Formats: sequence, C-alpha cells, structure tokens
Amino acid sequence: MTPPLKIIIVGGVAAGPAAAARARRTNSKAHVILIEQGAHISYGTCDLPYFISGVIREERALIAYTPAQLQQDKGVDVRTRQRVEKIRPAQKKLLIRDLTTNALTEESYSRLILATGSTARQPFPELNDCPNFFTLKTLPDAQNIRAYLHTHQPRRVTILGAGFIALELVETFRHLGLAVTVIHQEELPAPGFEDVTRHIVLDKLAEQQVRYVGDADVTGFERDAHSGRIQAIRTCRGDVETELVVMAWGFVPRVELAQQAGIRLGRHGGMTVDQHMRTSVDGIYACGDCVELKHHLTDRPAYVPLATYAAKTARVAADNAVGTRAVFKGMVGTIGFRFFDLELARTGLTAATAQAHGFQPVAKTITEWSHAHVLPGAEKMAVTLLADRRSGQLLGGEIVGKQGAALRINPLAVALQAKMSVADVARTDFLYTPPFAPLWDPVLRCAMQLEKAVGTRF
Amino acid sequence: MTPPLKIIIVGGVAAGPAAAARARRTNSKAHVILIEQGAHISYGTCDLPYFISGVIREERALIAYTPAQLQQDKGVDVRTRQRVEKIRPAQKKLLIRDLTTNALTEESYSRLILATGSTARQPFPELNDCPNFFTLKTLPDAQNIRAYLHTHQPRRVTILGAGFIALELVETFRHLGLAVTVIHQEELPAPGFEDVTRHIVLDKLAEQQVRYVGDADVTGFERDAHSGRIQAIRTCRGDVETELVVMAWGFVPRVELAQQAGIRLGRHGGMTVDQHMRTSVDGIYACGDCVELKHHLTDRPAYVPLATYAAKTARVAADNAVGTRAVFKGMVGTIGFRFFDLELARTGLTAATAQAHGFQPVAKTITEWSHAHVLPGAEKMAVTLLADRRSGQLLGGEIVGKQGAALRINPLAVALQAKMSVADVARTDFLYTPPFAPLWDPVLRCAMQLEKAVGTRF
Repeated sequence: MTPPLKIIIVGGVAAGPAAAARARRTNSKAHVILIEQGAHISYGTCDLPYFISGVIREERALIAYTPAQLQQDKGVDVRTRQRVEKIRPAQKKLLIRDLTTNALTEESYSRLILATGSTARQPFPELNDCPNFFTLKTLPDAQNIRAYLHTHQPRRVTILGAGFIALELVETFRHLGLAVTVIHQEELPAPGFEDVTRHIVLDKLAEQQVRYVGDADVTGFERDAHSGRIQAIRTCRGDVETELVVMAWGFVPRVELAQQAGIRLGRHGGMTVDQHMRTSVDGIYACGDCVELKHHLTDRPAYVPLATYAAKTARVAADNAVGTRAVFKGMVGTIGFRFFDLELARTGLTAATAQAHGFQPVAKTITEWSHAHVLPGAEKMAVTLLADRRSGQLLGGEIVGKQGAALRINPLAVALQAKMSVADVARTDFLYTPPFAPLWDPVLRCAMQLEKAVGTRF
Repeated sequence: MTPPLKIIIVGGVAAGPAAAARARRTNSKAHVILIEQGAHISYGTCDLPYFISGVIREERALIAYTPAQLQQDKGVDVRTRQRVEKIRPAQKKLLIRDLTTNALTEESYSRLILATGSTARQPFPELNDCPNFFTLKTLPDAQNIRAYLHTHQPRRVTILGAGFIALELVETFRHLGLAVTVIHQEELPAPGFEDVTRHIVLDKLAEQQVRYVGDADVTGFERDAHSGRIQAIRTCRGDVETELVVMAWGFVPRVELAQQAGIRLGRHGGMTVDQHMRTSVDGIYACGDCVELKHHLTDRPAYVPLATYAAKTARVAADNAVGTRAVFKGMVGTIGFRFFDLELARTGLTAATAQAHGFQPVAKTITEWSHAHVLPGAEKMAVTLLADRRSGQLLGGEIVGKQGAALRINPLAVALQAKMSVADVARTDFLYTPPFAPLWDPVLRCAMQLEKAVGTRF
C-alpha cells in the first residue's frame, strides 16, 4: 500500500487556505498541511480599509475560516505560528520552526505549494520601530492602525502613495473625520489609470478637502527624539506635518524561501510558474501574490498581486498538486475600487504598457449617461478604450463614474480574453432598458467611436 | 450631372429617424425624406411606462427630435401626417396620401428604407372602439391612457399578459396606487425567462399585492351596454371585474406595405433581410421592428423587436442605402427590465429554444451576493447559465436580483457573441472589489458550477 499523498502548503492568508481546501475537496485521501507563521489564517485583505473605518466592526467578519474551522470543515491539518525556515527540494523536506517553543522539526512532503504572498513595499528600514508609521497588508497591520487611532486620537494623517489602496485609505480616514494629506511621487494620483481618470480623482480629492502633494519625493522624516514618532515628512515640495503615517507603495512578492530553494524568479521578482502553477523545481507549486502571471494580451509574465488571482491560482495549484489537471491560462489585470461616490475600474493594458509591448494603441474617451437620462438617478460616466491601430484588437478599457460604472468593466474583460476587435465589441448586444442603461451603453458608444478612429475591418 | 441620391424612409418612430439622420451624416449630399403617418416622430417607446406613471412628467422629454429639429439639425425632409399607400418597386415610386388634405401624390426614390415598425398584438377587433381598453405601443397610446386615468380616476386595472412590458405596467399602476390584476395564459409570469426567475416574479407580484390570474384564457368581455366600457373580463379561471384594461400581448411586425410590394417575409412574419438590411426587392432596405434578424447562436432569423436593434439596423440600412458598406451581423436577444426593486435580464437562448435548435442544453442556477456581504447593501442574486452538453458552448444566461444584477448580463452577451465555452467564461478576469463584487462574481461562480456539470475541455 502506498502512503497517502502529503501536500504541504506554506502561507495561510488567501491563496494558502484556498489551495488547502481545494486539495482536500479534489482528493479527500490526501493529507493536507497548512503552515502559517502568524496566528490568523484565511482573511480578506481587501476588506481591511473597511475594518479600519469601522464599516466592518468585527474582526470575525473578515475571517473566512479559523484554523479550527478549516480543520473541522475541510479536513486540513492547520499549523499556525510555525515558520518554514528552509526547503530541501532534493529530499522533499522542510525545516520548520515552532514560533511558540522555538523548536525546529523536519517534515517531508509529496508536493509543496508555496503561497507565501507579498509584503508591503517599505524602503525605509529606519521606520520599522516607529510607533506612528504603518503599512497595510495583514490583519495585524489593520489591528495596529485601529489601536493607534483609538489610543492616540490623531487628527491628521498622511498617506504615502496614491494607488488604489492609498485612495481607499483616504476614504477610510475621511470617514473617520481626520484631515488627510496624500504625498505621491507622480504629478497625478491613481497611477496605472489614464490621465482622464487621474484628473477626475484629483478633483475628487480636492472636493473631499484632501491635501494632495504631487510630484513629491519623500526625502526624510522628522521624528520626536523622545517618542520616536514622525512629526513631519520632508519632501522636495516642502515639509508635511503629521500625526500618523500610512504607507501604501504597493507590494513585493515574498520569495526568500523560494530563492533559497533555487526556484526561478521572473523579472518582476515573483516566482516563474507554468500554466499548471508549477515552479522550476520539481514537486513545488506556487500561487497567489508570490508568483508572476501571464498577461493574455502580451503573453508575458506580469506581477499583479490581486485577491482574484490568489483564489484562482490556488485552485489550479491544488488540483495539479493532487494529480488533477487544471490550468490558469492568464489574466488581463481587471481592477477597480470605490472612491467616495466614484466607481473606478480598468482592465487590459494602459496606453503606456501597450506601447512598451509593441502595440500601436489608439485611445478614445467618451462620457455618457449611466441610464436613460429622462429617468431619475442617471449620472455621467467616462469610458476610455484602447485598440491596436494595425489589428483593431481591443487592448484595454477604463471606466470612471458613479453607480453602475465599475461593473461595466466585465464585458471588456471578456472581450479582451476573447481577443475581440473593437469593431466586434461595437457590435455586441448590450442591454438597453431605461432604468439601467441608455440605448447605447457607454461602453458600446465608446467602442463605436474608437472603431471609427481605428477603421473598421470586416 | 447625376441627380442627388433620393432616400425615402417610411416610418418615424425609432428606426426611421435614426436611419434618416445617419443617411444624412454618411452622405450629406443625399436628399433624405422621412414619411410618418402620425404627428410625432422620434420618441422613446421604452420610456412610455414611466410617462404613464408620471416619473417622466413632460411629453417633451420622450422626444429625441421634433420634425422641425430633425429638419434643421440633420437636414432631413420630414413629412408627418403622410401615409404611404403603395410601393411600385419597378418604377421606384411611392403613392402617398396626405392625411390632412386626403390628396394623393407620387414620389420617386433612389433607395427606399422601410421602418414601418410593429403594432401591438390585439386579437379582439371588437374592442377597437372600447373606451377603457388600451394597448401600449405609441406615444398617442400612452397619452390616451394618461387622459383616461385623469378623467375617470379608475381604482382597478387589469393587465392582459405578463411579459416584460406587462410587468413594467404593473409597476406603473401600483406606483399610481391602483389595484392591479394580471391575467396570463401561462401558469407563471415573465414568459421567455426560466422557471426559477418566473417564480421570483410571481412572489414579487404577491408581495406587491397584485392579483395574478395564471393559466387563464380570456374568453370574453362583459361591457356596459350604454358606455361600451369593459366591466369584467371572462376567463376560464373566472370573471375579473375591472375599470381599465391594458393589453400587452407582444408585437407583430407591420408589413402590409412590404407584402404588397412583394418583399419576402420570414416565418415569424417580419421582412427577411440580409446583413446589409436589404430586403428581397431591389433598392428596398428595411430596419427596426418590421424585420427578422439573425440570431448569432442559431444562425436563423428570429423576431425580437427591441429598440437597440432598431437603432443598430437603422444605421446599417442607412449606410448601405447611401452607398457605404455596413453590416449587422446578428444579435443574441439581450433584454432586461426593472420590476419594483428587482432587476431582471437575460441573453441568448432559453433551455426550450436551445433544445428546439438541436442543442443539448445543461442549466445551472446559483445564488450569490452582489458584493462582499460584510459590507452594507449586499443582496443575493440568482444567475442561471446554459451550455451545450456536447460542445461546452455557452448558450444563454439569465440574472435576477437587486442592484447590480441587470448589468451583469453584458459580459454574457459578449461571451455569446464570441461563442465562448462555459469553461472559458469560468476563467474570465472579472472584477473583484468589496463594495461592488464578491471575490467570485455571481456570473463567474455560476460558470464554474456549470463547467463542472458539462465537463471541462481544454
């Protein structure tokens, strides 16, 4: 009799628990071990801004599975406060430290799934012990920010960065009544979006009485000698006094373990995986924020750490690890967020990335009503579409508006995946019904305009 | 010098004015004549229920162009209160009656575009002069219903039929405070939708205190001898007393002129057109509710009289009539409506139509949150998807829920047009962001479940 398949999964936040549950579901005989160095597993990092704001009150609401639940409901052997210190791929063994007892043990595996995730980018190591400086990546990060707000009652907060998490945090802190300053390296907020959208975000920041310091490099921090607290942030645009600092400069893949095990990394620093989520080392799979994923439009790996890809790649890694063939064919970078009463979403390539990959992007922006403007509640939205001048292929899309704007990105995500031309998108059978959409849906109207700019090909 | 192209368009409601404006835009030298027998042109028939309810107060808000505006802004020669009595295709001439003077004139054309639309299906000719019986198709119909409500203050209305316009009218009359009864031939309301949706509509009717008389054939009308008003509707399920009756039994194409001109009709009674919107008679194009259109999934003509197709086919007919090549490739039957706080939408084939066209439909229904349920406002929605058992091809989809349900039909419309498999839909990069969509969008989750039922093909 062969021993049962032993799957070890490293990392317990998003991809890890998903992979663990999936592995058990696909192969109920497998012994599935989930190892996490922290105390919590399986929580929604995307919900954290709403936990800080108090819109989500209970920590419990963030957690999909406690360790006990994942164990009981899914039959996963969950081990928290355990850190994998080394992978020995040749022996298929792990060296694991118990963070409570400090004891080291060895554990063998049949297949290993790395779901080590990402960490917040933080290039100021001197701030690691600073009491009023935070990044936001983990549940403890959010708990720490909440605790600081509670105990110190700051009136002024500074957000470093102006990406979508930074902007969600702006909303969070305005919701809590704090004066908010945003410091960003680029002239406009919302990097990765087209300028038309970025200007709308800039206007919304002003409308919400948020001070935006753009085009500003952070040159240093003025800290209180006694408490160590940051009192001001020095930038090339002047000093910004503050009582609390939250940095949202994006994420970097956690790949120390992978590197040490000799797993190949890509040019963005994430692990290289094939469509079965296999790394370059035999028997080791990876999923979630620690990997690079193929972009459908460029056919090249990109680093886009999003919860949806964590969930999807976890399933694929788990299925293949237990012996069922599954593939993750790629992604197109669909992303969106709420910013006060604005809905913003984008998918595919920006003009800049399209150009960098050899396309000849042509862009068109239109504004159109969200639904028949003779009915109450209709609002204007801006839609930008990009297509390749030579082939007519749709390359990307972006929408900013009020209610009903963000969800309109999904038809474009489907069109990108199907590699449709903008002319085909312009001929799609979109819903018209006065309370929900105008006769020509904003997306359709933009596609028609862009088709004209690119030229129809039948 | 050749004389200018003379384009005559017959019919002024939706497709006609759109074709007229488009013809002038594509070819500014063309002489474009729009002939309409009524007094109004270019109005939104889909808005009429909201005009009756008073949500849209002014008649003017329904009208895109008055005759004078279409003349001035677009250079169209608009002729209202004129009826085309005969087409003489061999001579390329029309016989036209002036409905004011009763005079008959002849007019020649280079190309003719028939946009004669549809009429409400009304198989009770004895009710044509009945003062409290109405259909709803034209602006005068809506004006007449409004006038009757104003002068007679009825407290009870009966709607004949339970399709989407009937249901919109239910909402209209409940909004106005009337007691509403619906009489429908089938057991469930919302024909053309799957049973799961139809049961939800039935429950909503009950919740809104609407009396639903299903499975009921109308056998006669009890009318007041003096006034001629209907007092009761006789059905095989008993008599229904009423003070006002609105019939919404669908639409039939208006093709008397076309028939007389020898234009070929399809099996659904609409004109047969090619992808350039050419009829079977040389020099005559047709668009809008009077034509049958190719369904992308069956490759067969279907009769789906919707405003979107009127708008789209009008452009194609106009472009081709003035000499610019354009095509209408087909449609997938995307349709939706609001019913109180419900949003309903569908696209593609139903299980029944799919089966009738030789597919082997497999259906899956799931219910899922509209967005992260830990945030306020999340509501459950039901998504039903259909795929072909043999090929895995997506065949149709249907969504019923609250806010954000209807617009989710558009990604499915794109997927149908691209003839994607349900497995490909299940791998699409849908938006996830807590305030707008859950980690697995309802559409995605349904596609994943259906993929499992059908079996994956890589």
